[in-house]
Amino acid sequence: MVILQVVGYKNSGKTTIAKELITYLASEGIRIASLKHHGHGGLPIGLEKTDSEQHKQAGAYVAGVLGEDVLQVSHSGDWQIQDILLIYQQLGVEFLLLEGFKKLTFPKLVLLKNEEELSLISSLQNVIGIITTAEINASAVPYPIFHFDETNSICTWVYHNYREGWL
Amino acid sequence: MVILQVVGYKNSGKTTIAKELITYLASEGIRIASLKHHGHGGLPIGLEKTDSEQHKQAGAYVAGVLGEDVLQVSHSGDWQIQDILLIYQQLGVEFLLLEGFKKLTFPKLVLLKNEEELSLISSLQNVIGIITTAEINASAVPYPIFHFDETNSICTWVYHNYREGWL
Repeated sequence: MVILQVVGYKNSGKTTIAKELITYLASEGIRIASLKHHGHGGLPIGLEKTDSEQHKQAGAYVAGVLGEDVLQVSHSGDWQIQDILLIYQQLGVEFLLLEGFKKLTFPKLVLLKNEEELSLISSLQNVIGIITTAEINASAVPYPIFHFDETNSICTWVYHNYREGWL
Repeated sequence: MVILQVVGYKNSGKTTIAKELITYLASEGIRIASLKHHGHGGLPIGLEKTDSEQHKQAGAYVAGVLGEDVLQVSHSGDWQIQDILLIYQQLGVEFLLLEGFKKLTFPKLVLLKNEEELSLISSLQNVIGIITTAEINASAVPYPIFHFDETNSICTWVYHNYREGWL
């Protein structure tokens, strides 16, 4: 399973880029999947009242609820990224797009709103490209720089890298 | 991983019994987990608007969101129970309580509100006990019958069966 991260500060457009990549890669017949970090501040809306949350409070190590196509799994331990990757792999995913999870070491596309944010890059491992709305001096970084609106170029470049086995 | 089902019609008290069992088995140091069927009628509340749902609409085969302790995974194919059981197993669960999923063939506790509901049993596989608020003729069925309020007896009986390897 190939893994690509899309990282950037809040409201940098990660979800937009992720959606474009998903649409493109799915149209190429790839079993593309995504995983997003919800960020801090508790559970997704609506979950507090579910029975599975009651089960967890009763002492369940893991409590899940299966809707028609959605599985919601509450884990009393911390979720380990390796456990989650195994789940995706087991489901037959070919290409996983991780939105966020900055600290992980998979290949990364970094979204930058301005040149000042370039400092973000030095804290990241395995950056392979930059997506930005700002004018960034191309000689300042050793990666390809895409404009945020060049979604077609971004998608074809990612697809090419995938096909060549470079991801 | 031991699997026990708690089944019964809607509002028969499945969640109450499940919670009692979770509390008891967790207090015995067992890594107990639960999985509930949300029933028909779409997604859990609040999910419709999440980005992962947008990803799925864009063509994602699997779209997930990780909160602090909750992983929500939306699957464009149907969820197969075997895939879900593997997830629980991989997380180190020792005892899984399935709430609902009547058609599965794991050992089952059946909740009955009245004697008329006894007919439910003939449609089920692997029934091991009945929990009811009604007066049921004990000679009518070849399983132990517990009153709904005898939660301590139910829990100790399940625990005993677990310890003896009968589940």
